[in-house]
Amino acid sequence: MQNMQLRGVMPPMITPFCQNGDVDYDAFCSNLDRWNQADLSGYLVLGSNSETCFLDEAEKLELIRLTAQVAHKDRLLLCGTGMESVRDTVRLTNQAARLGMQAALILTPFYYIGAMNSAALINFFTQVADQTDIPILIYNVPKFTHNNIGADAVAALCRHPNIIGMKDSQGDVPQLVKFIDAIGDADFTLLTGTASVWYPALTLGLDTAIQALANCCPNETAQVQHLYDAGKYAEANALYQRLFHINAAVTATFGIAGLKYVCTKLGYRGGFVRAPLLELSAAQKQAIDGILKKAGY
Amino acid sequence: MQNMQLRGVMPPMITPFCQNGDVDYDAFCSNLDRWNQADLSGYLVLGSNSETCFLDEAEKLELIRLTAQVAHKDRLLLCGTGMESVRDTVRLTNQAARLGMQAALILTPFYYIGAMNSAALINFFTQVADQTDIPILIYNVPKFTHNNIGADAVAALCRHPNIIGMKDSQGDVPQLVKFIDAIGDADFTLLTGTASVWYPALTLGLDTAIQALANCCPNETAQVQHLYDAGKYAEANALYQRLFHINAAVTATFGIAGLKYVCTKLGYRGGFVRAPLLELSAAQKQAIDGILKKAGY
Amino acid sequence: MQNMQLRGVMPPMITPFCQNGDVDYDAFCSNLDRWNQADLSGYLVLGSNSETCFLDEAEKLELIRLTAQVAHKDRLLLCGTGMESVRDTVRLTNQAARLGMQAALILTPFYYIGAMNSAALINFFTQVADQTDIPILIYNVPKFTHNNIGADAVAALCRHPNIIGMKDSQGDVPQLVKFIDAIGDADFTLLTGTASVWYPALTLGLDTAIQALANCCPNETAQVQHLYDAGKYAEANALYQRLFHINAAVTATFGIAGLKYVCTKLGYRGGFVRAPLLELSAAQKQAIDGILKKAGY
Amino acid sequence: MQNMQLRGVMPPMITPFCQNGDVDYDAFCSNLDRWNQADLSGYLVLGSNSETCFLDEAEKLELIRLTAQVAHKDRLLLCGTGMESVRDTVRLTNQAARLGMQAALILTPFYYIGAMNSAALINFFTQVADQTDIPILIYNVPKFTHNNIGADAVAALCRHPNIIGMKDSQGDVPQLVKFIDAIGDADFTLLTGTASVWYPALTLGLDTAIQALANCCPNETAQVQHLYDAGKYAEANALYQRLFHINAAVTATFGIAGLKYVCTKLGYRGGFVRAPLLELSAAQKQAIDGILKKAGY
Repeated sequence: MQNMQLRGVMPPMITPFCQNGDVDYDAFCSNLDRWNQADLSGYLVLGSNSETCFLDEAEKLELIRLTAQVAHKDRLLLCGTGMESVRDTVRLTNQAARLGMQAALILTPFYYIGAMNSAALINFFTQVADQTDIPILIYNVPKFTHNNIGADAVAALCRHPNIIGMKDSQGDVPQLVKFIDAIGDADFTLLTGTASVWYPALTLGLDTAIQALANCCPNETAQVQHLYDAGKYAEANALYQRLFHINAAVTATFGIAGLKYVCTKLGYRGGFVRAPLLELSAAQKQAIDGILKKAGY
Repeated sequence: MQNMQLRGVMPPMITPFCQNGDVDYDAFCSNLDRWNQADLSGYLVLGSNSETCFLDEAEKLELIRLTAQVAHKDRLLLCGTGMESVRDTVRLTNQAARLGMQAALILTPFYYIGAMNSAALINFFTQVADQTDIPILIYNVPKFTHNNIGADAVAALCRHPNIIGMKDSQGDVPQLVKFIDAIGDADFTLLTGTASVWYPALTLGLDTAIQALANCCPNETAQVQHLYDAGKYAEANALYQRLFHINAAVTATFGIAGLKYVCTKLGYRGGFVRAPLLELSAAQKQAIDGILKKAGY
Repeated sequence: MQNMQLRGVMPPMITPFCQNGDVDYDAFCSNLDRWNQADLSGYLVLGSNSETCFLDEAEKLELIRLTAQVAHKDRLLLCGTGMESVRDTVRLTNQAARLGMQAALILTPFYYIGAMNSAALINFFTQVADQTDIPILIYNVPKFTHNNIGADAVAALCRHPNIIGMKDSQGDVPQLVKFIDAIGDADFTLLTGTASVWYPALTLGLDTAIQALANCCPNETAQVQHLYDAGKYAEANALYQRLFHINAAVTATFGIAGLKYVCTKLGYRGGFVRAPLLELSAAQKQAIDGILKKAGY
Repeated sequence: MQNMQLRGVMPPMITPFCQNGDVDYDAFCSNLDRWNQADLSGYLVLGSNSETCFLDEAEKLELIRLTAQVAHKDRLLLCGTGMESVRDTVRLTNQAARLGMQAALILTPFYYIGAMNSAALINFFTQVADQTDIPILIYNVPKFTHNNIGADAVAALCRHPNIIGMKDSQGDVPQLVKFIDAIGDADFTLLTGTASVWYPALTLGLDTAIQALANCCPNETAQVQHLYDAGKYAEANALYQRLFHINAAVTATFGIAGLKYVCTKLGYRGGFVRAPLLELSAAQKQAIDGILKKAGY
């Protein structure tokens, strides 16, 4: 399993909600059906863009089950089953494994941030990887965790046989170079977790992406990589820069409500966000409409 | 209920674990028995110092049940039942209410920090308070949530009939003054959440505390207040400054492992921490021994 | 000299400018004349509120000269002559000494912040103090320098015979307690550099202040201390809280332009700010008018 | 002048000091002689790596004079003459112009950081550019100024006829894309101010660099660009990654003392740093020796 071939673009799938706050499983499956037609190599269920922290365990398991059921057979199946404690993480990950997930993306623990130094993170990921039935990937997303994993911890973890990669959503290019150096020739994949550095990351040799933008613009996100692979650098760069502002809108500027709004505009079923997230105001929707128009949508 | 008299010192009770990682309920009850003899006005179960984020729901409910069962009848019973979503928070809080808790301390949601502005926080706490069977208190702890509630949100929330106070653990004195001003004459109690500002907070008129230090030094923490109330300002200040370094050791410097170590040294059953938290090294224990000795223990 | 008695309230004097950007020395002296009638123990020329970083050396020396000439003879005379290098700091401080200044407030160097650790700061202040003809005080103002001196450096510096104190403008009360502990019984005065913690600082035993607010409200700032000294704690606290919002307006919210505006409204000659600082907009002035009115002015 | 062709690599020249702290002008000229033989397009005198904030005005002018005198005639001559105030910046820049400098790199003012919003920065750079006899470039270096210029301010300034570019030393690639978008087709050059993003910046179309690394490794820094221009992307990337750790050592990790040490090791005359900067310890020198060795030096 740890020779699993990670490559290409995967969406951290949104979780559509009904107006009453229930998970809209129909909409979720409908989106999956459509992504099955798109140029994607796999799916991440229960990522940060999935409002995972708002879901109870039954909802998480049902979303995992549906992902395994509806996803096209050639797709990689990843799940975000990181919890704050080792034991909860192991338990949930192994449940996901039984439901068909192929690998798990595990958040760096963060509540007790002052204690989550490199030693604690190395200990955490080692303990988890030793006990999970599927390989794991580290998930570094300081925007949400405020905890930026160091290259020293990556160097220590990247040769564990059950740790196969890391999704980095920090988007700090010099730090990516440090990670590349720390990884060396280990069998370990560094994934870009944000479209804001997609083209620069490709030029550094990164070829796998899990990016919010792949929810609403899967083919365009994949096309940046195809152009790059074909040596059409100027075109790849231009497409990246065209998508850049859409990406900013659906992440930093308007968050998940923005991402869902764009998904709905582009033919997916975004649905509602769950409280305490707020729906977009009319003015915010207009701002996004302008950004989409400027980008040619 | 909302005229509940909040006053005095309450510990955010530690959760002792066995070496195998299970909750040590015996040790928990044993500590409660001893705190029942101490100069405390109430208890907080499931606070930040309780390793709550590592507990599953069954463990949380059992700790709540035991708290209600073992606590002396004159004690206020508070529980930390804040979750990221409104619906999870309401559900868990109402379960706690049925088990005998009198009020709930609700964390500001924080994962989607970019979206958790004042409007979202006002919306969150209002929705929660509208649906909970016991009154709630806001819990502001930027050290863990990186989300510092504004005085504007406090001003908007402090007159809700089911929101009776706020525990502030930021320890920023000018901000406490802003909160005092925002609260005005509302029936709303501002609690100090850190012993690092206990005496200055008393001089500003705050008379309720939920502080890590009250786990290991309950009587001394309460004594600062008694001295202040008796007009013995110099003595109160001196005791506060003597306790200051112990408090720093059991919070910022050595975290929960440090707090548990000091609890054990002073006669409580601290127990183990749960992974990924790490136990103290021998050198760290020695450093704490020195701090305790210097403070006269 | 190093037994200089530091006590009471001193303004970090504003530097009024003409509309063409020249220093308005007449306005400066006129303000000094008026402060000579007020309840102040001394003056700081060339502080952060003096727009010192915009002044050339000739202007600095002229302001120092005028301060020594116009100040009432019972006033302490302090000057802010800290520069980034040891040699510039020593040279300017000794020029100021020759012009009659009694002590110098020396900024922590900050441009190369990554290199300005405790060892470098200890080295800097020791080298400066060894070479200056008047005693110096450390000036800790992270709001501008982003460089917060540690208690370890203060412990190392506070017994130098030519370092007589520190102005702390951070306003972090737990940090003040750490400084108090670091200083112990050394002959070294800890001054509060911000009115936002004036009353809490008095309760901790600090009795000297250099605060922006003392420019526009010198007597009221001093009155907080007199009430405290007289044991009228509730009145001292109430006056502090009444002044709190004016202080916020003339520092964090509206900066020096705001301070100068309030000075002018209350009978001083605030004058213009120097570019690139911008004058207040009409809306900003209105906001300040409202704050002053609410505070009873 | 504003059609000045900015391209290629320029060192922000170190300022060697004698052991007694005086500027070592001989060493400075000797370095210039050697850089004249290297693959460089120009020179920046009085940059952040020049310890400019430690220099008095006479020293600054002498370094400018010597740069104009010793530099090879085909080199662009830039000087760092930004000061906190508009008037000091204009005065010093125009003195530099009379001494032969062709353009000036002007720091964003930063002491009153709370007031230095986009409106203030636009006002500052416009006022300066209106009054200087040579064109200016904006200098964005949040590592030292803590003030990160926004794309909105760049959009407003990039069409001023006397503002010809910006050196960005933040090294935040998504932000570079925002700047590129803000600049559009304006006649305005975006320079990379840090070798940590040199290759990724080239792939985004940036072709001018002022980087600390160019002091000690000018030819290698230039070679990254030549390889890129020749379409040898893998080689360019590999050289960039090989230089990456040297660059980290001479900037973030060991600062200017580290840069001077490497300069000396590689045949330049690094000289001493000026206090309060500290010389490297033996252990620090050893660490750098190891980094150089690993990189093949």
